[in-house]
Amino acid sequence: MSGNLSEYDIIQLVQKQARGQGPNLEKGIGDDCAVFSSGKHESWLITTDILVDSIHFDKSFHPPQLLGRKCVAVSFSDIAAMGGEPRFVLLAISVPAHISSSWLTSFLEGVTEIVEEHDCLLIGGDTVQSKELTITITVLGNSGPGEILFRSGACEHDTVYVSGFLGDSGAGLKLLQNYLTDHKSNRWSELIQAHLNPTPQVSLGKLLAQSGCVTSMQDISDGLATDLSHICKESGVSALLTESLLPKNPLMLQAADHLKLNSIDLQLFSGEDYQLVFTVQHGRENELESMINMNSSQSISAVGKIQKGSGVYLQQEKGKRVEVTFKGYEHTMQHR
Amino acid sequence: MSGNLSEYDIIQLVQKQARGQGPNLEKGIGDDCAVFSSGKHESWLITTDILVDSIHFDKSFHPPQLLGRKCVAVSFSDIAAMGGEPRFVLLAISVPAHISSSWLTSFLEGVTEIVEEHDCLLIGGDTVQSKELTITITVLGNSGPGEILFRSGACEHDTVYVSGFLGDSGAGLKLLQNYLTDHKSNRWSELIQAHLNPTPQVSLGKLLAQSGCVTSMQDISDGLATDLSHICKESGVSALLTESLLPKNPLMLQAADHLKLNSIDLQLFSGEDYQLVFTVQHGRENELESMINMNSSQSISAVGKIQKGSGVYLQQEKGKRVEVTFKGYEHTMQHR
Repeated sequence: MSGNLSEYDIIQLVQKQARGQGPNLEKGIGDDCAVFSSGKHESWLITTDILVDSIHFDKSFHPPQLLGRKCVAVSFSDIAAMGGEPRFVLLAISVPAHISSSWLTSFLEGVTEIVEEHDCLLIGGDTVQSKELTITITVLGNSGPGEILFRSGACEHDTVYVSGFLGDSGAGLKLLQNYLTDHKSNRWSELIQAHLNPTPQVSLGKLLAQSGCVTSMQDISDGLATDLSHICKESGVSALLTESLLPKNPLMLQAADHLKLNSIDLQLFSGEDYQLVFTVQHGRENELESMINMNSSQSISAVGKIQKGSGVYLQQEKGKRVEVTFKGYEHTMQHR
Repeated sequence: MSGNLSEYDIIQLVQKQARGQGPNLEKGIGDDCAVFSSGKHESWLITTDILVDSIHFDKSFHPPQLLGRKCVAVSFSDIAAMGGEPRFVLLAISVPAHISSSWLTSFLEGVTEIVEEHDCLLIGGDTVQSKELTITITVLGNSGPGEILFRSGACEHDTVYVSGFLGDSGAGLKLLQNYLTDHKSNRWSELIQAHLNPTPQVSLGKLLAQSGCVTSMQDISDGLATDLSHICKESGVSALLTESLLPKNPLMLQAADHLKLNSIDLQLFSGEDYQLVFTVQHGRENELESMINMNSSQSISAVGKIQKGSGVYLQQEKGKRVEVTFKGYEHTMQHR
């Protein structure tokens, strides 16, 4: 980009133009969703994401139906990250001439499928012809008052948690890029599915928001290091992750070996896991873990602590402490 | 598009996938905005529009600040078309490397300017790098209950009205395309401004929705013939326009002469005027006209009648009656 304007710079420019507050607005730009209210009994959440062909997805190995699901899942994940439930979806799509009607039909079937699985409705959209395929999804969600988690609530001594495994999607992407492998029947299918068809953590997000023990939350779209950096920045704190605590899928470790990649890099920086990272009040960890064990099939893992200061650090198994703040941006070239 | 899939076909595909109804949803796909409610006292309207470089706008003659204004105006016009007031704006933009930081800064200033003029807030967005510049604007508006006008309410004997002049934007575009003329200081500047910097009819739309005499409404984005066709289709009626009644800007007539274009074609098919077309209950025309004269600086003109049947027809000055249904689609290649 000329004038040395990076994607991060554009975001800063937009944020500068966005006035912070107004009537009915609980939260403007700077979290997973904007939040607005009407009346005392309900808050609405809204988020919008653009996905561009060959930057955010690769049609050569991404089946259109799964791509349709994923485009919606990415925005559902933003709603989940604040503890909301998705309700309405809008789809804006720019379609080049080389896209076939069967591709588009399958893509739309995927969109409809995930929308219906979450008891949502597709309520609007726009379609235009263009040179490049871009897909913009806008999702409206809602939640009860006081049941929304922001990035800004983390406090010193809180424990940092993540849901599920980290790095599965990144490993799946590398496998697809290297082998263009059939995604249905092979030993790596679990990782490949994690990349092609991620599950937004809507029910877990809602449980966490209603628990009363969680102080901040965000989804992991750009990698744990980057996404936890957002929480730290908005909360005015730092975080220390412990390498040995990062939850590892044994299959991801095998894939990392096979691909000659560093598994810790995959876990911290590869992004697109669409798991949740959240902070829990010091002393209430057991209470939260019991509640989640009883009410959710999804695992959660304590991975570090919130401290004074700024930035995100990793306590390595070999004893070194290294800074890992923001590194994710350079990897994915995307912002959610 | 391969498989003979036109833009119209894509829209049909999306509409087929969109379930019509659900809790809190007053209106899904198929009008200017989707409408959802929360509680009894308020309805929310939402609309999304994509604009693609070289298809919907031409950077060679569209100054970035005015383009920023227009991208938002287009969606504000959809809110106005249902009688709502815009409240919140989301901006999703895909930016190629050749866009300079000064271009983008001016564009964002234009966005902010119109957002603030309407007492709205920019509350979210997404930015990605891409090959093609695309701008997706999502606007949330609101209105009191029972104060929303749909496309579906027109009845036999209603009178068809339009606001302002028709064809000014189309003439302005042709002048810009033919002469790349300086848009500030020349005899055509009124027409050129109508194209580069259209005014969404928000206050007029609200007055009309609250009047109790208006039965259906829509904005004129694709040309009167096409947009009135939507009203007729959704209402199960036909419309007969009278050529001599179409409101003509004398400057537009001069430009049509100068460009050797048919001024009636400009008025019916050229699109992007962002005026309103609406139907008024038979017998209440004088009441409505007096109310608008007292409360608005914008002119309105009766241009035809609603009849039984389907389609849109034009009673020509020479005495012939011709069908003009839907012709607009082929001209503009866009759908709002």
